[in-house]
Amino acid sequence: MTDVNLAKMTGEILSRVREKKPLIHHITNYVVMNSTANVTLAIGASPIMAHSHKEMEEMAGFASALNLNIGTLDEYWIESMLIAGRTAGKRGIPIILDPVGAGATKQRSDAVRKILDEVPVTVIRGNASEIKAVAGDAFRIKGVDSMETVEAAREGAKRFAADIKKVIAITGKIDFITDGVRSFECLNGHPMFSNVTGTGCAATTAISCFNAVEKDPLIATACALGYFGLAGEIAASKSTGPGTFQAALYDELYNLKTEDLEEKIKINEV
Amino acid sequence: MTDVNLAKMTGEILSRVREKKPLIHHITNYVVMNSTANVTLAIGASPIMAHSHKEMEEMAGFASALNLNIGTLDEYWIESMLIAGRTAGKRGIPIILDPVGAGATKQRSDAVRKILDEVPVTVIRGNASEIKAVAGDAFRIKGVDSMETVEAAREGAKRFAADIKKVIAITGKIDFITDGVRSFECLNGHPMFSNVTGTGCAATTAISCFNAVEKDPLIATACALGYFGLAGEIAASKSTGPGTFQAALYDELYNLKTEDLEEKIKINEV
Amino acid sequence: MTDVNLAKMTGEILSRVREKKPLIHHITNYVVMNSTANVTLAIGASPIMAHSHKEMEEMAGFASALNLNIGTLDEYWIESMLIAGRTAGKRGIPIILDPVGAGATKQRSDAVRKILDEVPVTVIRGNASEIKAVAGDAFRIKGVDSMETVEAAREGAKRFAADIKKVIAITGKIDFITDGVRSFECLNGHPMFSNVTGTGCAATTAISCFNAVEKDPLIATACALGYFGLAGEIAASKSTGPGTFQAALYDELYNLKTEDLEEKIKINEV
Repeated sequence: MTDVNLAKMTGEILSRVREKKPLIHHITNYVVMNSTANVTLAIGASPIMAHSHKEMEEMAGFASALNLNIGTLDEYWIESMLIAGRTAGKRGIPIILDPVGAGATKQRSDAVRKILDEVPVTVIRGNASEIKAVAGDAFRIKGVDSMETVEAAREGAKRFAADIKKVIAITGKIDFITDGVRSFECLNGHPMFSNVTGTGCAATTAISCFNAVEKDPLIATACALGYFGLAGEIAASKSTGPGTFQAALYDELYNLKTEDLEEKIKINEV
Repeated sequence: MTDVNLAKMTGEILSRVREKKPLIHHITNYVVMNSTANVTLAIGASPIMAHSHKEMEEMAGFASALNLNIGTLDEYWIESMLIAGRTAGKRGIPIILDPVGAGATKQRSDAVRKILDEVPVTVIRGNASEIKAVAGDAFRIKGVDSMETVEAAREGAKRFAADIKKVIAITGKIDFITDGVRSFECLNGHPMFSNVTGTGCAATTAISCFNAVEKDPLIATACALGYFGLAGEIAASKSTGPGTFQAALYDELYNLKTEDLEEKIKINEV
Repeated sequence: MTDVNLAKMTGEILSRVREKKPLIHHITNYVVMNSTANVTLAIGASPIMAHSHKEMEEMAGFASALNLNIGTLDEYWIESMLIAGRTAGKRGIPIILDPVGAGATKQRSDAVRKILDEVPVTVIRGNASEIKAVAGDAFRIKGVDSMETVEAAREGAKRFAADIKKVIAITGKIDFITDGVRSFECLNGHPMFSNVTGTGCAATTAISCFNAVEKDPLIATACALGYFGLAGEIAASKSTGPGTFQAALYDELYNLKTEDLEEKIKINEV
């Protein structure tokens, strides 16, 4: 692993996304449907947002990745995720879960538990408190009770990843990506992300796009976060606040050249 | 027809929209509710987004046009469209249908069929594959089986339009608008449209706004697409990617002067 | 009251919002979920959009203010508002109601009536026709039948506010804020607001953010409208149409310094 050049890989995977234009089926929250569809297009993939039970199997049947996001969940939408997730699982396409607000309410914790029980999720991306809630509430993973420090969060995430055999990505000031065996940190990003709604959900969308064309979910996830974070860095330098930042972010996701990535992506194995 | 100056008509209809500010009732998908409401306002009309069965008749009862879009359909929303559509039909206001993803799933094909059976739709706008799916799946129109070439798509659309006695608009690199008797092509537009979500839905919104104030649906539809495409051309020249393009598009829809349209709208009878 | 410096108060309340980052629970319409979440963040508070009945009590249980908006209501969502509203009422947090489209349909009038009957709403913000509809349809308040002139609207709002013992804010060219005893007018604002969807809803969000950290709802509401209107004035001067205005608005809400407010906020007691 030590000789994998992740900056170079990021450019290669991005080129594949732009060439293959994979269809990403999103079952996501109302707040970010427009913004994550725009992020999917800016990256070079194709979004389809659909939730109706009657068409879930067909929709998940021709997608290249499934993106599940519980941000504005209710019972109907949880069931949509389960139906699509089972179809995606049978087909073996990557399934990316964003457990928005996990731990905040019992319904969210129960929904995440049920999805993870019934659907072969590939990657879970959340902030530290969401990942802690998922691991603790639903899985009682040892070592995630005290994820207060960065080091403790990383150790907890590793144990959780190893235990459920999935890739876990904790995003924040420094992103941490692990499958329980290998782990990476990504230094790309910018504080302005936290002033725009749905940028975490959009990072998950980037992960879905990259996983749709790259079989190693750990590599795909780390590279997606590097690319997404870098686009944010450049966008921040070209904008004057959260409104112009959001427009600039889409521009940069779209404009970033794969050769630029090679020198600006900062992902380290840790 | 040969002496109709469509560039001049575009300016005249746009002036009427801005003067009368018609109310456009949208029953549309979650992804584009915000963006199509903004497009409606930028054009100069007034949007109302409403779907509750209990208020459908009242809402459709004071609108000047009804915009139906099945992008994130489910059973409740299909029923909303049918209720509003029947009221709109009784009142004789224009009804514009955007069959998003038609052909992708059985539910979508069935929904379009049902809407067209029960509601007197005035205009259908889609891309070539959607129009082909609507004509083929629901109507078994001869000549739409092979809409692969531009010429075949145009012939198929003409037959379909003649058969169901509606205006059909196929948007793409060059837009094609037909009622089965007369046909137009519109050369305005820009490739950047395809990098922003919901621009097809927004074109349908422009069609709804123009039909709300112009009785000839073929003319209204062609002119709306010319104006919308021209706004996109100018927006692309003033922006640096899909994020800034979207903001610039709203600006141009709002700022375009009717006298500018006269020399820049490129619509030909074909 | 005459010696309250509302311009100074505006800066002080805004500083508190930015420091405390209160969580604002929105049950709002699909059109503005993204834009009002972004406005909440730009102001410095935290948005949570959630509507599922099963989690309503928990969500409303840790919020600092509850924002109710009936823009795309249906029966499920009205019930969500009632459940959250009762919890918020028990906890004594401010509840801000935006009666979008009140008077347009029976369902909207009934929903507003039911919410006001069962939930201890703190502030109602609408345009003149919405406030007139709420007061007239649901409460038969004398003097709101003829709210055609500005003066009549103000008198009607005062009576309504006195009668139901809430703060009423009518936004328009000049905003009017009253609790039936004291009244203010706010001169900040810009006509461009009316060309962007959901700016009324966003003004309500600003009111919710300010009420979350200031106990006097009349002061909090007047100051929120001054700040929001001023951000719009500056945004308009930096933009070229409704698209760039919206991005600039978020930038200004985020960038405005509390010391700038002191000289530019124009709120008068009337």
